[in-house]
Amino acid sequence: MESSNGVFNNEQLLSTIATNNGHGEDVEYFDGWKAYDNDPYHPSNNPNGVIQMGLAENQLSFDLIKEWMVKNPQASICTHEGVNKFTDIAIFQDYHGLPKFRSAVAKFMGKARGDRVSFDPERIVMSGGATGANETLMFCLADPGEAFLVPSPYYPAFNRDLGWRTGVKLIPITCESWNKITEEALKSAYEDAQNKKIRVKGLIITNPSNPLGTVQDFDTLKMLVNFVNDKRIHLVCDEIFAATVFNSPRLISVAEVIKDMPHVNYDLFHIIYSLSKDLGMPGFRVGVVYSYNDRVVTTARKMSSFGLVSSQTQYMLASLLSDDVFVTSYLDKSRERLSQRHKHLTRELAKVGIQCLKSNAGLFVWMDLRHLLKKPTKEEELKLWKVIINDVKINVSPGSSFHCNEAGWFRVCFANMDDETVDVSLQRIRTFVRRENKESNNNNDNTQKPNLKKRKEMMKLSRLSFNSRRFEETPNLLSPHSPIPQSPLVKART
Amino acid sequence: MESSNGVFNNEQLLSTIATNNGHGEDVEYFDGWKAYDNDPYHPSNNPNGVIQMGLAENQLSFDLIKEWMVKNPQASICTHEGVNKFTDIAIFQDYHGLPKFRSAVAKFMGKARGDRVSFDPERIVMSGGATGANETLMFCLADPGEAFLVPSPYYPAFNRDLGWRTGVKLIPITCESWNKITEEALKSAYEDAQNKKIRVKGLIITNPSNPLGTVQDFDTLKMLVNFVNDKRIHLVCDEIFAATVFNSPRLISVAEVIKDMPHVNYDLFHIIYSLSKDLGMPGFRVGVVYSYNDRVVTTARKMSSFGLVSSQTQYMLASLLSDDVFVTSYLDKSRERLSQRHKHLTRELAKVGIQCLKSNAGLFVWMDLRHLLKKPTKEEELKLWKVIINDVKINVSPGSSFHCNEAGWFRVCFANMDDETVDVSLQRIRTFVRRENKESNNNNDNTQKPNLKKRKEMMKLSRLSFNSRRFEETPNLLSPHSPIPQSPLVKART
Repeated sequence: MESSNGVFNNEQLLSTIATNNGHGEDVEYFDGWKAYDNDPYHPSNNPNGVIQMGLAENQLSFDLIKEWMVKNPQASICTHEGVNKFTDIAIFQDYHGLPKFRSAVAKFMGKARGDRVSFDPERIVMSGGATGANETLMFCLADPGEAFLVPSPYYPAFNRDLGWRTGVKLIPITCESWNKITEEALKSAYEDAQNKKIRVKGLIITNPSNPLGTVQDFDTLKMLVNFVNDKRIHLVCDEIFAATVFNSPRLISVAEVIKDMPHVNYDLFHIIYSLSKDLGMPGFRVGVVYSYNDRVVTTARKMSSFGLVSSQTQYMLASLLSDDVFVTSYLDKSRERLSQRHKHLTRELAKVGIQCLKSNAGLFVWMDLRHLLKKPTKEEELKLWKVIINDVKINVSPGSSFHCNEAGWFRVCFANMDDETVDVSLQRIRTFVRRENKESNNNNDNTQKPNLKKRKEMMKLSRLSFNSRRFEETPNLLSPHSPIPQSPLVKART
Repeated sequence: MESSNGVFNNEQLLSTIATNNGHGEDVEYFDGWKAYDNDPYHPSNNPNGVIQMGLAENQLSFDLIKEWMVKNPQASICTHEGVNKFTDIAIFQDYHGLPKFRSAVAKFMGKARGDRVSFDPERIVMSGGATGANETLMFCLADPGEAFLVPSPYYPAFNRDLGWRTGVKLIPITCESWNKITEEALKSAYEDAQNKKIRVKGLIITNPSNPLGTVQDFDTLKMLVNFVNDKRIHLVCDEIFAATVFNSPRLISVAEVIKDMPHVNYDLFHIIYSLSKDLGMPGFRVGVVYSYNDRVVTTARKMSSFGLVSSQTQYMLASLLSDDVFVTSYLDKSRERLSQRHKHLTRELAKVGIQCLKSNAGLFVWMDLRHLLKKPTKEEELKLWKVIINDVKINVSPGSSFHCNEAGWFRVCFANMDDETVDVSLQRIRTFVRRENKESNNNNDNTQKPNLKKRKEMMKLSRLSFNSRRFEETPNLLSPHSPIPQSPLVKART
């Protein structure tokens, strides 16, 4: 027998997709995952291990869900109380999804947006997580070689989700200040593509933003709606962090914006949703395409066959999300807990002189370490990042992996751990900053507050103009993320 | 607001995939599903409704699984006994899958093949049902426009699964007798494609065959292995009905065949598996790509992100399938029940002069109604089929939807209903055949046994040579199927 991948050349044997690097997993960036994977922190077994702050997971409110589960055994087909439904559910494979599930998800989508807008269960299309939902939408909207605009910084796995198998290209829009997409930047990116003979089929945004943890304002959203309507291209709003908005300003969904714009062509608007972040259940793979375009609904639904949600899970979640009292209470408590965690983290980081971009949503902060870079370059950012991983032993995510134009920013996730682990990470950061300050002091002939001085210099060098109002009043620190939630490097947790 | 799909032309707005008919659902064939959907049989509420014999579902052994569930509450994360695992499982989204799940599936694959061959958990790639698994494999193996050969008759939804979004073409191989793929036919199809400048990347077979319910013999499999090895193309064996073999000859998996052929290039061999048929759980969406090609395993695993199995379901099935005593007993009993059902159906059909192709596997029979056609054409087959649906009120599936070359064959599923429903369907068939015979007698001036005479004439007209040995000794009747298991027309069963 010849060894696998031996004598024969897979390049000729396999597809272009299988032999190119479109998945994007082989980048340097994943070194952080490897570091965590090889040496994961555990309070007693491995207290010096790497703390995972690269994973945008919401683990703060599982106690509420577990309590509900035990009180509602009929919601599961695997209990004495629910097993009479086992057969019906195990054989259920209709790609429309369980009607009760779609209704419950539509209602939850409304609740997660403050019930200011309602969603039609008939427009809910199931998919395998937001990953599957985003790909499905691209298969519906664009042909290979056509493009979508995306404001940077953006979710690293968009390249995989939107483009790997569909052949759709992503064109970043450089935003002039954080999270503010201007009409000029949008037009410029659009026209630039046109000049290169690339057909732009649409624009995709995350709202709340991943990685920034901020929300889009009404005027910007209205501008985007008018822009795509004028150009007759699509607007895809990825709103998977909708229920994580823990402070004002509130989330404005694109659904609210177009509700009052009857002149626009509704066929152009699509929302991506998921229960992975708002309910903290990425393992259950509940993704949703919500489209105002009938043909997209029909086609995406047919594509559901490739990534349907397990009927066992549909059934259980339909019951959970149909419980109004539970859902209202869950959303309130979850926001409160996220707010507390965010406040604690940013406040403690501020005490050691680390600021974060002012944010009010998401499961992460966007931490500013520009003052710790020797030069404002990607190389220096990655150098610092390696120190954070290998010496501070915290896996955070460098801004360059989010296609951020400015070096020195890091995403730090804060909701995938308990209070004690947060405090361990903060202690490590304090030690690190003290050491850096000491070294800096030594290098600067005992000049006072060298880092602040250095910081100001960096600010001048920066191409991006920052408004200090945009920073947390009580500045803040570390933030990682999960660019590829299904990283091969995440060990099984059982 | 303009109405959806109104003024604007979706053909320009959407992708080619969304606006062509590659999904194949809009064919006449689905009228049967509509008929069932509009008027489903129920013993008390709708005793004259349509009986669904178009769905290859295995409902005969759910009592065993339900019994196990109730006895093993710790296997579910939604029970008092299992809820302590809820958080770990809900957040588990590693695209490798739970190690315990992969091990259990690998072991089950071995058991379903009589433990004559073992499977490596490291080569198990999860996917959203066989639908997702087949598509994933095509994305790995072929570029758009490249082709796979497939012996006919074949599973109708292969066109969707293998080709809709991947752009891969299917080229049918016309087999000279049922389920027997000859080297000549294979070569001829391959060379024909070459002459048309189509690059053939592989061959896909179902073993056991859907729709025939038969298994491939060792010599044929060996010939196929040698053929693909010579041509350096892939062999994909869809073995999703592996554990439904209820009579001899036993299933020979391609895994067994290549085990003793060390000279062949293992990179060319891939198995598709699923728990939808063998365990009867299509709703849980457990599909598997098992590849001997390392690069395919790595790439397909990355693609798992688009259709991961819910971690709730992985966890539960890992426990179920790890229970050796249960699995052995389940497989034995399930086969026994399928055998009994098959025997009952074919015997009763034989009594009214209806034969089925001799089969020993699957959840269906391949029913021969050639003698009831006025002419051996597809049009006549569909005419008869409409009578069966509208008058006999049974939804079976016409051979033409399986790309069968010969008119007059129908697939009749028998495992998706209880004994009473089978008997109602048999009673309807008896009445139908009696009426047909009576009409035929009247038309034939009282000639005795007109149908048998007509049948012999039809046999002569047939392009295919049938060996009588291949028919059931106790011939048989009706058989439907599920070409698109996730038909939009299947109502929710809750």
